[in-house]
Amino acid sequence: MDSIEKLAEYFKEFPGIGERQAKRFVYFLMSRNLGYSESLSKMIMDLRKEIGQCKECFRFFLLNKNQTGICEICANPNIDLTTLMIIEKDSDLESVKKSRVYNGRYFILGGLIPIVEKNTPSRVHLNELKDKIKREAKNGLKEIIMAFSLSPQGEHTDSYLREQLESITEPLKIKISSLGRGLSTGTELEYSDNDTLKNALRNRQ
Amino acid sequence: MDSIEKLAEYFKEFPGIGERQAKRFVYFLMSRNLGYSESLSKMIMDLRKEIGQCKECFRFFLLNKNQTGICEICANPNIDLTTLMIIEKDSDLESVKKSRVYNGRYFILGGLIPIVEKNTPSRVHLNELKDKIKREAKNGLKEIIMAFSLSPQGEHTDSYLREQLESITEPLKIKISSLGRGLSTGTELEYSDNDTLKNALRNRQ
Amino acid sequence: MDSIEKLAEYFKEFPGIGERQAKRFVYFLMSRNLGYSESLSKMIMDLRKEIGQCKECFRFFLLNKNQTGICEICANPNIDLTTLMIIEKDSDLESVKKSRVYNGRYFILGGLIPIVEKNTPSRVHLNELKDKIKREAKNGLKEIIMAFSLSPQGEHTDSYLREQLESITEPLKIKISSLGRGLSTGTELEYSDNDTLKNALRNRQ
Amino acid sequence: MDSIEKLAEYFKEFPGIGERQAKRFVYFLMSRNLGYSESLSKMIMDLRKEIGQCKECFRFFLLNKNQTGICEICANPNIDLTTLMIIEKDSDLESVKKSRVYNGRYFILGGLIPIVEKNTPSRVHLNELKDKIKREAKNGLKEIIMAFSLSPQGEHTDSYLREQLESITEPLKIKISSLGRGLSTGTELEYSDNDTLKNALRNRQ
Repeated sequence: MDSIEKLAEYFKEFPGIGERQAKRFVYFLMSRNLGYSESLSKMIMDLRKEIGQCKECFRFFLLNKNQTGICEICANPNIDLTTLMIIEKDSDLESVKKSRVYNGRYFILGGLIPIVEKNTPSRVHLNELKDKIKREAKNGLKEIIMAFSLSPQGEHTDSYLREQLESITEPLKIKISSLGRGLSTGTELEYSDNDTLKNALRNRQ
Repeated sequence: MDSIEKLAEYFKEFPGIGERQAKRFVYFLMSRNLGYSESLSKMIMDLRKEIGQCKECFRFFLLNKNQTGICEICANPNIDLTTLMIIEKDSDLESVKKSRVYNGRYFILGGLIPIVEKNTPSRVHLNELKDKIKREAKNGLKEIIMAFSLSPQGEHTDSYLREQLESITEPLKIKISSLGRGLSTGTELEYSDNDTLKNALRNRQ
Repeated sequence: MDSIEKLAEYFKEFPGIGERQAKRFVYFLMSRNLGYSESLSKMIMDLRKEIGQCKECFRFFLLNKNQTGICEICANPNIDLTTLMIIEKDSDLESVKKSRVYNGRYFILGGLIPIVEKNTPSRVHLNELKDKIKREAKNGLKEIIMAFSLSPQGEHTDSYLREQLESITEPLKIKISSLGRGLSTGTELEYSDNDTLKNALRNRQ
Repeated sequence: MDSIEKLAEYFKEFPGIGERQAKRFVYFLMSRNLGYSESLSKMIMDLRKEIGQCKECFRFFLLNKNQTGICEICANPNIDLTTLMIIEKDSDLESVKKSRVYNGRYFILGGLIPIVEKNTPSRVHLNELKDKIKREAKNGLKEIIMAFSLSPQGEHTDSYLREQLESITEPLKIKISSLGRGLSTGTELEYSDNDTLKNALRNRQ
């Protein structure tokens, strides 16, 4: 495998990139001047040096001169300590953050729980989540919000976590909730699936 | 305009059909045998003769030997009389009916309320709806469910009707609700718009 | 099956229409006034009465007061008699006619030759084509142009017809040609398939 | 602008990548381990060190231990010296090469000629192409093949180059040809544009 193919293999791992576009990326880099590749290469490394994974919520964040290992959301004194939103991955968190609809804390699970696998994959921070909940209970945590995509795997993760966390949250009187379901922007009644109609009707208000 | 173009003009009014496909429909009819056109033509007329518009809910229904002018849903003694779902059009009703999630009555509004127009279009059965609510109050109606697509016009219709119906429903202690909003099947958190996230968070449970 | 379902079954046979849209067509007709259905129904029948299938080229055409059974293209004295274009279906002919790039005669084959079937389907006018060629040879026919879509079935039809017609055209010194192949409008070199590149290179000029 | 945004800006320049996906790439890199970023970063630089631009055809190629500055295609003694294919960019050349339909030499123009601009952009190797043709004439060059995408800009480049090269190729009796046009794989006659039909008819065979 030559350098072109090797680099294409790397780009193929990028989200949403197939073999063809991976190759195009390589040709694109070849056609740009040396300076472009140098900058890109350096910035990829710089980013790695500048980011850390928050010890509290497991999101990746820019360290800046931050020596605490705690991200700016977890460190923010104005954040609402009564709610903790459990999120699959960093890009989901960015989406919620950008919408400015939530002012509580987050916890990045690091993936969804596969439906078929027997053992929870190690990259999912389940034990860390349990510890986090126990810690936050002392800080006034009242509600855990499950915020997963509405897919079979997302729904499985929701019910799996509820089962796993129950023995911790019940004695602490912490409520577990999940994002509401129903019509989302653009939903046309005529083309709605049964589950969406069922949820929309059940959750009418 | 010759017969081909004239018929194409008619097909162009069909939902979702553009000029090109309208022409294809005409050529398709030309290429089929005479019997096909005769049957189609007859069935279009038969359908008109066999359907009526229900005096109660304004949906179109097959009369069969029904002389009452009331559709089989409105005439069904097992239907829940405590809820009335207001629906834009027949195809929306079909979709809800098929999902088997609702067992109450329906009322076809006959269209959405345009945002810009001053006067409510006459085809919208607003006065008939008011009369219907007054009648049904005597039969035990407790809740009106607004079931419109989640579009700007759907939302406008929702709030316009609430305003219009308030003076009737309040004294009768009839609740007005709307279909719930939030994540719908397939919604990915990462790509959700702000309104959907806001609704999903507000309606968490 | 009730009238709604029966009519939907008919619409499902329309080109490009699935079950869902077929149903929508029926609801659309139900929601329009009686006059609309009457006009549509009448026009479908009128069209059938007004069209005939040309005895020469097998296209469908508006008879008007034409009593000859020959369409306006075949009857046109200014048409080039030296070329005959063999076309799959009426809508293909319309497309070529509209482009104004061809001034010769046409012959509608009435379908493509299936690759797997043993017997040529009877709706394909193969024998009529052979007769037509023999007749037109006396009127100066010099070239038969195969004009089929570039699909496996189109290519099969092309080679099948060449084989079938050879024994007629060779003694009469009539040439058989096929539409040229290569880059078509919008083709990007980077995304071209091998066959297109091969044809484009072979047919360079 | 922080490191995340800066790197996203770079990814946005990648072919076919918008703002959203650029951001996803950054989060993807943040979520992978350090080793991944290091390898990617190194490989981007390695590629730059390992590639050169061929002095003969201007394509980018892996130098390996090649000290000549001439790519393996231009150096191949089995290549057909009588034809030279002019190509817009490296990824087009890869596509033609992969199809194995052409065994001659290539020349990368480095871009298309804009329709509106007065001056030919400097990145287009026009002067180098003229020199190349003069040199190759001595090696038996008989034909120049223009191989551009069938877009307005591609067609403009074709005619612009013909005009520019004429005074060189005519005295040397070198023919200029362009890729053939007509139906490409999957073209349906019914939906063909006029230009494609015209080309297909003119280039019938």
